Amino acid sequence: MNNMIIGQSGGPTRVINQSLVGAILEAKTHTDIGEIYGVKYGITGVFDEQFIDLRKISDEKLETIAGTPGSALGSCRHKPTPEDCERIFEVFKKYGIKYYFYIGGNDTAETAHIISEIAAEKGYDFKAFHIPKTIDNDLQITDHCPGYPSAAKYVAECFLGNELDNRSLKGVKIDVVMGRHAGWLTAASALAKFQEDAGPHLIYLPEAPKSLEEITTEIDATVDKYGRCVVAVSEGIKDETGELLAKKFSKETDSHGNIQLSGTGALGDLLADHIKKNSKHDGLRVRTDTLGYAQRSYAGSVSQVDAQEARLVGAEAVKFAMSDAKSGSIYIERTSNSPYASEIKLTELKNVAKVTKDMPRDFINDAGNGVTEKFLEYAAPLVGEITPVATLF
Amino acid sequence: MNNMIIGQSGGPTRVINQSLVGAILEAKTHTDIGEIYGVKYGITGVFDEQFIDLRKISDEKLETIAGTPGSALGSCRHKPTPEDCERIFEVFKKYGIKYYFYIGGNDTAETAHIISEIAAEKGYDFKAFHIPKTIDNDLQITDHCPGYPSAAKYVAECFLGNELDNRSLKGVKIDVVMGRHAGWLTAASALAKFQEDAGPHLIYLPEAPKSLEEITTEIDATVDKYGRCVVAVSEGIKDETGELLAKKFSKETDSHGNIQLSGTGALGDLLADHIKKNSKHDGLRVRTDTLGYAQRSYAGSVSQVDAQEARLVGAEAVKFAMSDAKSGSIYIERTSNSPYASEIKLTELKNVAKVTKDMPRDFINDAGNGVTEKFLEYAAPLVGEITPVATLF
Repeated sequence: MNNMIIGQSGGPTRVINQSLVGAILEAKTHTDIGEIYGVKYGITGVFDEQFIDLRKISDEKLETIAGTPGSALGSCRHKPTPEDCERIFEVFKKYGIKYYFYIGGNDTAETAHIISEIAAEKGYDFKAFHIPKTIDNDLQITDHCPGYPSAAKYVAECFLGNELDNRSLKGVKIDVVMGRHAGWLTAASALAKFQEDAGPHLIYLPEAPKSLEEITTEIDATVDKYGRCVVAVSEGIKDETGELLAKKFSKETDSHGNIQLSGTGALGDLLADHIKKNSKHDGLRVRTDTLGYAQRSYAGSVSQVDAQEARLVGAEAVKFAMSDAKSGSIYIERTSNSPYASEIKLTELKNVAKVTKDMPRDFINDAGNGVTEKFLEYAAPLVGEITPVATLF
Repeated sequence: MNNMIIGQSGGPTRVINQSLVGAILEAKTHTDIGEIYGVKYGITGVFDEQFIDLRKISDEKLETIAGTPGSALGSCRHKPTPEDCERIFEVFKKYGIKYYFYIGGNDTAETAHIISEIAAEKGYDFKAFHIPKTIDNDLQITDHCPGYPSAAKYVAECFLGNELDNRSLKGVKIDVVMGRHAGWLTAASALAKFQEDAGPHLIYLPEAPKSLEEITTEIDATVDKYGRCVVAVSEGIKDETGELLAKKFSKETDSHGNIQLSGTGALGDLLADHIKKNSKHDGLRVRTDTLGYAQRSYAGSVSQVDAQEARLVGAEAVKFAMSDAKSGSIYIERTSNSPYASEIKLTELKNVAKVTKDMPRDFINDAGNGVTEKFLEYAAPLVGEITPVATLF
């Protein structure tokens, strides 16, 4: 009864199904593995045994699934209670589950950690593996998170377009980028800066709190210099007191206690209103976009490095399960930057659970309104080439 | 002094520079054409003679410009007054301009029309050609507008991702799509519907007014059926009295008298609030995104048909100018749908100026909340293949 089960949790990414398919295809090569179950809607699907027999899916269909955005098994945002965990073990025992793979972010690693701890206490023969994914790129240990490079590419291509659009019609353009705790994805906007006068001209990150007054002053100074300004703003930016700006309007929270930041244009509109009212430039044209869920699910673009690595972390998780390794979290170690190369490794679940990883100080400029060359060297190989552009003046 | 001048106006598109480069490269092959000037920032750049010598730009650089989003010459949203037109003629005479090419939407055609009429009155030897572009796809005469297929592709790939994201996490997802007067771009979301239960489940267009109550009822019914709902909403939707919903919050207008619809998340938030408060499903998860300027400028995706046709309308405009044709507007005639083929033709400017083109009634379903097969047959060849996807359940 050496059966395995795999699930997906949290917000989807463009390549989360690569990891799913990587794990399934690898599992099929191991005769030690019995059934290969997929659980629908993350851990919540365990409660009522919503399992799919993944051996029945053809390799050809799996390849199409791998290229499909969203979480093919369905997802959830649920932090299991101790009672939930009791129920999970009943079900796992019933189905002879020995290997549990859970693809997700740090909340997901925490869930896998809780379950594996209780399994150990109960002497249940069981291994849990957290397969990383998050466009937020804020997991500990790993060099970067599968899902981030594709989201970063999307953000860079958006900003490249918005920069060239703003160059045409001037004014101030503010784009709000996902990233609850850390500025990694917002920082990727800098990859769009193709020449000295090109935007984004200002990048505001959760790691570098700023008052609305400072932001307005810096935008005004950019308009003085270039006659226009393109601004990247993280949805998680904080004011000078360290409080989330989003707290001024958002109340909705999920079961992990996270405030709703995405799926609303309110932060962008708040910023635009403030700048229109307080800029020294009268009648300034200010437009905002909130990049939204396309950052994690836009179908038309994917980072090749990301697709390959996401496939690999799924496959390697199964190989670790088949080795004498204990439960753990898969991570990526960058072994070379030029040409880019990486290796897949394993760390303990507790090293990844709960805690997020901010951008290091030396990835952010001294003024706290942009990124450094060091960040660009980090991010560029992950994203790959973006659209070549030129200007007439 | 058979000089030519070319300018760009209104919102950029992903392929507006293809038209610019098509015209320049064609012009270079005609010895009858003297200088090839580009005017910066549309008609406003004529006032202070902001001209660029486009003969100085290498063909290699022009090819990169052709693939660059935004308006490489800069753009404007300015409707010239009679005094403006006097000034324009002074400048055109001074520079020996005989051929004027203006790339833009129906406001741009109107501008070209006004100028060419006054030129005719004054007996000035002059031809003006409107080269069409608009992601709104709402120009008269032409089968479709350059810029629309690429924007439609972007919208379809966004909805494909959002559908698969919503399938993972459920709830209601509303995406607000550009399109001031007509629903063409919003309708393109339907190209993402890859199987019967897939979204967008509801599509709301300016051509089919709906009350907020009807919209809420239809969303509730979809949630009853599928446990979730993906909704496409045009920024230009009207309530049952025919009034723009956006009027409830937006006051800003441009010099053509158009209300600001884009660059704000307010319409999406208004819809989400209404549905959360009025849905019969308590605690319904409702998220909205406003797709924003990426629809017209996202760098990472382009329709190949669009890029080719946009290049061609620029080149053909110059050929018409060199023929005995009078001033006019370039348009596309579809000559075959499978395989897709088109021809480039010329119509009078007055046929395109001012008036916009709504979606025909037989492109919209009877319930006024979706599109017909006929629309899909119209739009699919323009957009080309979108990402193949599959589902596990």
